[in-house]
Amino acid sequence: MTHAALSRDEMEQYLDEIFPEIHQGGRTLFIEAVGHGTCRVRMKHHPKNLRPGGTISGPAMMSLADFALYVAVLSVVGRVPLAVTTNLSINFLRKPETGDIVSETRLLKAGKRLCVGEVSLFSEGSDEPVAHVTGTYSVPPGERS
Amino acid sequence: MTHAALSRDEMEQYLDEIFPEIHQGGRTLFIEAVGHGTCRVRMKHHPKNLRPGGTISGPAMMSLADFALYVAVLSVVGRVPLAVTTNLSINFLRKPETGDIVSETRLLKAGKRLCVGEVSLFSEGSDEPVAHVTGTYSVPPGERS
Amino acid sequence: MTHAALSRDEMEQYLDEIFPEIHQGGRTLFIEAVGHGTCRVRMKHHPKNLRPGGTISGPAMMSLADFALYVAVLSVVGRVPLAVTTNLSINFLRKPETGDIVSETRLLKAGKRLCVGEVSLFSEGSDEPVAHVTGTYSVPPGERS
Amino acid sequence: MTHAALSRDEMEQYLDEIFPEIHQGGRTLFIEAVGHGTCRVRMKHHPKNLRPGGTISGPAMMSLADFALYVAVLSVVGRVPLAVTTNLSINFLRKPETGDIVSETRLLKAGKRLCVGEVSLFSEGSDEPVAHVTGTYSVPPGERS
Repeated sequence: MTHAALSRDEMEQYLDEIFPEIHQGGRTLFIEAVGHGTCRVRMKHHPKNLRPGGTISGPAMMSLADFALYVAVLSVVGRVPLAVTTNLSINFLRKPETGDIVSETRLLKAGKRLCVGEVSLFSEGSDEPVAHVTGTYSVPPGERS
Repeated sequence: MTHAALSRDEMEQYLDEIFPEIHQGGRTLFIEAVGHGTCRVRMKHHPKNLRPGGTISGPAMMSLADFALYVAVLSVVGRVPLAVTTNLSINFLRKPETGDIVSETRLLKAGKRLCVGEVSLFSEGSDEPVAHVTGTYSVPPGERS
Repeated sequence: MTHAALSRDEMEQYLDEIFPEIHQGGRTLFIEAVGHGTCRVRMKHHPKNLRPGGTISGPAMMSLADFALYVAVLSVVGRVPLAVTTNLSINFLRKPETGDIVSETRLLKAGKRLCVGEVSLFSEGSDEPVAHVTGTYSVPPGERS
Repeated sequence: MTHAALSRDEMEQYLDEIFPEIHQGGRTLFIEAVGHGTCRVRMKHHPKNLRPGGTISGPAMMSLADFALYVAVLSVVGRVPLAVTTNLSINFLRKPETGDIVSETRLLKAGKRLCVGEVSLFSEGSDEPVAHVTGTYSVPPGERS
């Protein structure tokens, strides 16, 4: 089994350094586990992520998925600040519960230039996904650590 | 030519009423024009929408596109609070300039149950899109005004 | 555990009846297993599905995925001839080997009006997917058996 | 205004040479016009492209869109046999009429490594699209003519 290029702690430290903006308005994204091409990321319940009626907003779920895919990419290619999302497609499946959202991510491909992955989002404690995302990151040539 | 179900002013008033959360952290989304199945929406430059290096974040662009699609749906079906996004797919094309993002939206289909549209996002003053979005809204039966 | 609405044999018989066109040019799609919201479908190697160099064509993989999603939908809702694809999104991940393509499908949501699923496609004997598909079927109201 | 890298006649000749498989079962795809990053391609009515009830099959429309995107890519980058589709997303909007399908394609981005475009498909004589496609081609480095 291949190890992750960065441990959970290294990942968190690296992202805090290059990505401080994601915690604006309050820290809500927490990396819980990292493997080689996989991760579990939690989005803590927070008013900034809500829609009318108290449900989690679509853009908040997209932010979570985009972040989780980036973590999974870094877990394979190492510290690459300039990887960028080229495509992200989300299906909203069910109304989320009030509370945390937990995401499970795995890369379907970790190529030299493109990494493709999928993210399933769950309301905590439920095993039926509230949303499903596929996305592609482009990794600049010569940038892998 | 068919008129929009809501004028620009009616649209803005209606969305402020049912969607106050979108202005959290500062009002950045401004509806500039509304037609039948079309709209132009501007996202004002604001620190809350930035990524490292000062570029506009992907989730901020997704929020803009999701909002603009909702405006275009309402322009056809009228006041329907319960329309929900079922699918949203975004291609990121170019690095945005620092500044406002202007979006142009048109519905490709306005069906009884599903509305599908596309959104092109531009850095102000440029005619090459920074991102392109297609999305689907589900409209509840019997909800059209 | 919930049973499939149709057994593998019933499914095959039903699809041959309502969908004879898919076997035009030679039968290549074979349903190997059906569960409640899941299925395994094989596309046999056949010249009609090739691209230059002997690799499987993209449209052939899209056909397989669309068919497999339909089988998974029928496994939940029963005999519904009028279910239609509303959205299909495919990521091509690796060059397929010459030979059969095996697909694994599961529904992420089986709603009253919309069913959403994902399909992973593999070259036989490999566990790295050659393509990944998400798709949505719209099920007409009052059509469920 | 920039000229297309290949004229309509050069394009047709080149594709016949590297892609003879697409005409298997009868020639149905006809390039009608080519510009720099744009094209119009017609799919002639043919039994091999039908679904039950005489409507055009989804996979036939996906084939048309994939082919049209490839033509638009070649119109910018020239003769590049190894460009491959990495992502294709289709929204089916309306039931097509019996008859030809006409497609209009334009590239949204023609980058050094990735080309992204959109395709609108119409039943001949109608101005409401039956389907809309976005897709990405990956162009191998050093392959541009």
